[in-house]
Parts: sequence; C-alpha cells; structure tokens
Amino acid sequence: MRIVRCDVTVSLDGRMAASGQRLENPMGEGGMRTMAWHGSELDTSPFTGTPNPTGAFVMGRNMFGPDRGEWDLYWRGWWGDEPPYHAPVYVLSHYKREPLPMKGGTTFHFVTDGIQAALEQARKTADAGDVQIAGGASTVRQYLRAGLLEELVLHVAPVTVGGGERPLDGIGALDFNPVDVASGPAVTRLKYRPRR
Amino acid sequence: MRIVRCDVTVSLDGRMAASGQRLENPMGEGGMRTMAWHGSELDTSPFTGTPNPTGAFVMGRNMFGPDRGEWDLYWRGWWGDEPPYHAPVYVLSHYKREPLPMKGGTTFHFVTDGIQAALEQARKTADAGDVQIAGGASTVRQYLRAGLLEELVLHVAPVTVGGGERPLDGIGALDFNPVDVASGPAVTRLKYRPRR
Repeated sequence: MRIVRCDVTVSLDGRMAASGQRLENPMGEGGMRTMAWHGSELDTSPFTGTPNPTGAFVMGRNMFGPDRGEWDLYWRGWWGDEPPYHAPVYVLSHYKREPLPMKGGTTFHFVTDGIQAALEQARKTADAGDVQIAGGASTVRQYLRAGLLEELVLHVAPVTVGGGERPLDGIGALDFNPVDVASGPAVTRLKYRPRR
Repeated sequence: MRIVRCDVTVSLDGRMAASGQRLENPMGEGGMRTMAWHGSELDTSPFTGTPNPTGAFVMGRNMFGPDRGEWDLYWRGWWGDEPPYHAPVYVLSHYKREPLPMKGGTTFHFVTDGIQAALEQARKTADAGDVQIAGGASTVRQYLRAGLLEELVLHVAPVTVGGGERPLDGIGALDFNPVDVASGPAVTRLKYRPRR
C-alpha cells in the first residue's frame, strides 16, 4: 500500500517550531526542546526506517531554507552534503531552479506549479513507497485543507514552546479517525486518518 | 493521595471550546463535536467516578455562566437544578456572592481573592479527594502558570474546531512528564505531570 502521509513533531501547544526561527536557530527559540525524543524508543521517523519506506518527500520552501525570493544557489538545504531523506524531495516554490542532487540518494526538485503537481510528481517517483509531506506547518496545512493527506502522525513532545506556527491552525473544522497511539517518557505518537 | 488535577477535553487543535460561545450555545460553533466521546469507553470523567474521587472543584466565572460584572442572581449555572459536580465548586470572580447550594451535593462558592485562595479553600473541603480545576481555558492557564497544577489530563477529541480558546496558550515554555496514554475510536486520553 502507498499512502500520502505526514509525520511531524509538535509541541504540546501544537507547534512544529518555536517562534524566532533564523539561520543559526532553524527551530526557533527553545524549539529544539521538541526534538529531545529523537533516538528514543519511539523514533520511528522515516530516517530510521518504517515497514513501508518513504519513496518521496514534499516540503515547503521555508523548510528547505531561510532565503526568500530568487534562489541563492549556494544554499543547498539545512542538512549538509548528505541530507537524511535518501529519496527525491519535492520543494514547493514560486521560483524555478534546476534539480539538486546530493549525496546518499537525496535529490531536491523544485516545483513551481502548486501542491497538487508536487504530489503527483512525488507519487510517480515514490513507486511502492509512501509519499511523505515533510513540512513545515504551512505546507501540512495546505495538504490537509485540500483533502490530500491520508495519514497524519503527530509525535507530541511533552513541552510547550509558547510561540510559533501550528500545522493544525487555519484548517477549519475537520474530522479524523484515531488509528493508533503509543507513548514513552520522551514522546507520545498519535496516528490519525482524516475522514472523507 | 490528594492531588490538584485538571481533566479537560480539547480538540486536536487544542481548543476547549469553539469560538462563538453564547447563551444558547455554550460550547461555541461546532464545539460540541469535541464532546462526542462522552459515554464512550474512555469516559472516566469525574462525573462517572474515578479511583480517587474529586472532593472539590475550582472553575472560572465564564465556565459558570455567560453574565459579566455584577451578578445576575437568577443565574444558577449552566447545569440546571442538579449540577453534575456533587461536591463544593469554587467559582473565581471579582464580585462577591452568597454560596449557592444546589441539589445533589453541589454548592457553588464564589471566591474573590484569587486562584491561590480558591485552591486553599478547595483543598480544605476536598478532604481525602482530589481537587479538580474544571476550566475554562483561562483558569487552567492561570493554574499552570502559577505551578499549582499537579496533573494535567487531556481528552483529545479527533476533530479540529478552527477557533476558540486554548488552555495551553500563553503559558510559555513548560516541561511535562507523560504519565499515561489511552485511546479509543472516539477520544485519546493523555496524562501529564508538570515538571518542577
């Protein structure tokens, strides 16, 4: 089975990152506190492997980097030479840019014709794998609103951060089916399927 | 053991009630969708009994009723002649009012000297039972900020409501220990202890 899935970490106050994000501090002030669970018993992120691997990712431009407007071609993402995706990553943007192959199987593709188009391209290359909407908050929100997300996994960190964007803000009244829940001392994982 | 506990229902977007609350619709537009789980397998609210019963409640004035300023003495709460508390309820207010005994063991006491004073009075009358901070969002927030809450139980309904107050907003950066988690098709229950 291949599904369109979003697996994000949020704080207990629903934020994917704290406010005050900048180049030296991409998660915002105190935002790294939400990531303390990585490496814990519930670390089933795509980076450590899942039963059905992620074949392709979609992310918003702000998740790819801090620059805006025309591309700064020296910027190659937050993750260094070998990003942790090991698959094609479709980056939503208003500005065209040539594909950017990185070490370890990650290639960033820049998509300028919207979230539907990005998802279609991701589906095609994902083959038997899942497509993952990687973030940030605004991108998750857009796919939820468009009814394009099939599974929403929230890793809820046991901290509040007090500011920052929330992926579940601005989506109005939606209904979900709880599918699964798991918890450890560092994080609680909630899995939902949006109802049609 | 006697603890100061808060057990509230929130939507997946963290709201205790939707926006548009008014006399005919105290939960706001679509807010009743968060309450669909009542009567389900996870209905362990104080109203159906817990291992350690609630000996006294504290609530904000807005949870007691819609009027503001000087008391309308005809208003006796949202719940009819026999409210579901069956214990003393301390209502935070800026306006004095005589205690209001109701059927079934509920008596509303109106406390005008702040959240600490209300909690002390609740502790005294709770005896061996827990004290429960019943809501609304602003009252929960005040007790969290003051470090007076010992256990936070969130019944997370699998719906977003799109507007309304969030109890975990405006409390800054706080850390919690996850204590317990349980889930059914209608609701997910998360239990936390604030870290000192």
